[in-house]
Amino acid sequence: MDLKETAAELLGKIRTNAPLVHNITNFVVMNSSANILLALGASPVMAHSRREVKEMAAMAGALVLNIGTLEEKWIEAMLLAAEAANERGIPVILDPVGAGATAYRSKVAETILRKTSVSVIRGNASEVLSLAVDDVRTKGVDSSLSFSDEIVTAAGALARKYGCIVSISGEKDLVADGDRVLRVANGVPLMTRVTGLGCGLSAVTGAFCSVAGEDLFNAVAAAYGFYGLCGELAHEVSDRPGSFYVAFVDAIHAAGAADIHTRLKIESG
Amino acid sequence: MDLKETAAELLGKIRTNAPLVHNITNFVVMNSSANILLALGASPVMAHSRREVKEMAAMAGALVLNIGTLEEKWIEAMLLAAEAANERGIPVILDPVGAGATAYRSKVAETILRKTSVSVIRGNASEVLSLAVDDVRTKGVDSSLSFSDEIVTAAGALARKYGCIVSISGEKDLVADGDRVLRVANGVPLMTRVTGLGCGLSAVTGAFCSVAGEDLFNAVAAAYGFYGLCGELAHEVSDRPGSFYVAFVDAIHAAGAADIHTRLKIESG
Amino acid sequence: MDLKETAAELLGKIRTNAPLVHNITNFVVMNSSANILLALGASPVMAHSRREVKEMAAMAGALVLNIGTLEEKWIEAMLLAAEAANERGIPVILDPVGAGATAYRSKVAETILRKTSVSVIRGNASEVLSLAVDDVRTKGVDSSLSFSDEIVTAAGALARKYGCIVSISGEKDLVADGDRVLRVANGVPLMTRVTGLGCGLSAVTGAFCSVAGEDLFNAVAAAYGFYGLCGELAHEVSDRPGSFYVAFVDAIHAAGAADIHTRLKIESG
Repeated sequence: MDLKETAAELLGKIRTNAPLVHNITNFVVMNSSANILLALGASPVMAHSRREVKEMAAMAGALVLNIGTLEEKWIEAMLLAAEAANERGIPVILDPVGAGATAYRSKVAETILRKTSVSVIRGNASEVLSLAVDDVRTKGVDSSLSFSDEIVTAAGALARKYGCIVSISGEKDLVADGDRVLRVANGVPLMTRVTGLGCGLSAVTGAFCSVAGEDLFNAVAAAYGFYGLCGELAHEVSDRPGSFYVAFVDAIHAAGAADIHTRLKIESG
Repeated sequence: MDLKETAAELLGKIRTNAPLVHNITNFVVMNSSANILLALGASPVMAHSRREVKEMAAMAGALVLNIGTLEEKWIEAMLLAAEAANERGIPVILDPVGAGATAYRSKVAETILRKTSVSVIRGNASEVLSLAVDDVRTKGVDSSLSFSDEIVTAAGALARKYGCIVSISGEKDLVADGDRVLRVANGVPLMTRVTGLGCGLSAVTGAFCSVAGEDLFNAVAAAYGFYGLCGELAHEVSDRPGSFYVAFVDAIHAAGAADIHTRLKIESG
Repeated sequence: MDLKETAAELLGKIRTNAPLVHNITNFVVMNSSANILLALGASPVMAHSRREVKEMAAMAGALVLNIGTLEEKWIEAMLLAAEAANERGIPVILDPVGAGATAYRSKVAETILRKTSVSVIRGNASEVLSLAVDDVRTKGVDSSLSFSDEIVTAAGALARKYGCIVSISGEKDLVADGDRVLRVANGVPLMTRVTGLGCGLSAVTGAFCSVAGEDLFNAVAAAYGFYGLCGELAHEVSDRPGSFYVAFVDAIHAAGAADIHTRLKIESG
């Protein structure tokens, strides 16, 4: 399958080029995101001062914005960094952690989406639904739609609205660009019992996009598939969250093209 | 023994209900506290912006305040969040990290205790002694008291002063409400060689209190006992701090009612 | 060899005295630096509020400043803390993370070096070169110098300029005081694939300096050698970064004088 080749090629490029991934992310996951990116073969940097984010983002292969532990000054920094990335065509990944949970987070996620050009939104179903709510629910979507169908509709609407890719982690992950939909069936439920694994996927998505050229859609699906299969490999080592996380970082480092060819499960959705 | 039943029941409720535990805590332990809460079965959230802490605390089952790496704005956020929790009767846990070490930390801990209604103080002996000092030492406690007796006196005085439960980690943990005293004999010394395990217990205490209804006193003792026995289980896996921490998170996830019935050691003090 | 005795003696003193090491460091590594210091036998504290850093630094055995995730207020705190440490002759370690990568970081590192008395700079080659650039490159260093020779020249120039020790992590680590040079041949490449291990070495260098009296030069070399041999011990357990980190913290805790005598590789450079 073509996507397996693409995924293996992108992984190879990351390991050869060690792209710089600039993260403005939350305090909880800074350490795990950095370790996951290093294990992958990328070069993580965390920087959030307004005095340096433009310079840092301009050097990066991707910019990852994550609103998990917000502060006013960090939002300003995110906007400045995204502006610098946009000027140079550097992919921007937005992880709208907690959008929908508080009014503040929803507003900040929308501000970033309106004021800058985001390449990829990566969140969970409730975050994406909350961002798409005006465009889906309140516009009278057929109420007989299943939850799963509603999410596909929401992802597509959000993707078209902001001209970006929308990806959603779930039992089957979903990647949509407003036109096409892919489903990724890799991963294990234990991944949700370790903090920061969703945020880590946003960082890994940044790494894959940084070496993808124009085809971000397939790069996002490849990132999800690779990340999920590393979860499967780790689950063969441990079914408890402490040792599972350790095995997961090991798998991100050790997994290669052979694992992709054996395990990647991506299909049109 | 009754407390074993209580502890097993509370643990079961956490795993069934996945209560939201809102943490405003220090940078060092955000990741470990989140992972410990997830392994336990609770739903952690970290949020400290003044723009959202009231909304977040109001949704939570418990609020955990930890002054480990203070900043001015964070204190304001803690007071706002505690106010919202108090209005709704949501238990508030205070971990006064470093009270007594610097004047600033002592002052902040006292400010939180005076301005809000804290349900449980969870600290070590020196922190509790420093907070109780006006009420114990300077009021002429019998100088022939042993250190251990002095701590019991301090815990009781502090509990009565603020109408809260005071719990102290130590060789034998102590839980006091100004009237009753319980001693918890679970745990291993290696737990003090891993950063954030004390703070993690504050978070776990929040989770136990969130499902306890009115009986917070026994819930706090149950949290200490369960946490300590998970340390014992981890110590059977490793006696070195790196792998001990991993085994500890695994134990928090895997330990159940049978372990509580076999191992819990709580006695009247 | 004498340095083996010195290293074993300093390690013993750390484990006996549990010196307080005050860190004002970046968000990514706060947890790992604390765990590495605890495993070593030291007492870590992280504090950055302007209201308490002077008090905290004055109590410490060493102060470790790390500019990895800068903010304006943190720089102020670093200067205040360094001032308090300087007044009492407490060693100050500076880790100029990212100096040379952005103009802001270079400027901040230089500000700290100019305004306070730093005892030890601990960085990588590009950071040290960027700080020494005016004194080395622009002053017409012989362009036939190899990269390795250029680094020795830069380290010596920087050491003389600020009257401090300059140490550089690399394949062979370098410790220079403007007069003498030592080379440390311990360590494994995998250490660069785990986030925060460089920053952790800055913290460990602080711990070794805190018990060294006047002889900081040999203490820095001892810290590098001990840290590197713990990496070698961990590498015997795992060659993957997740489990390697766990094994590394275990090794910091378990390694002793015998390992130092067998493995330490320090030579005049």
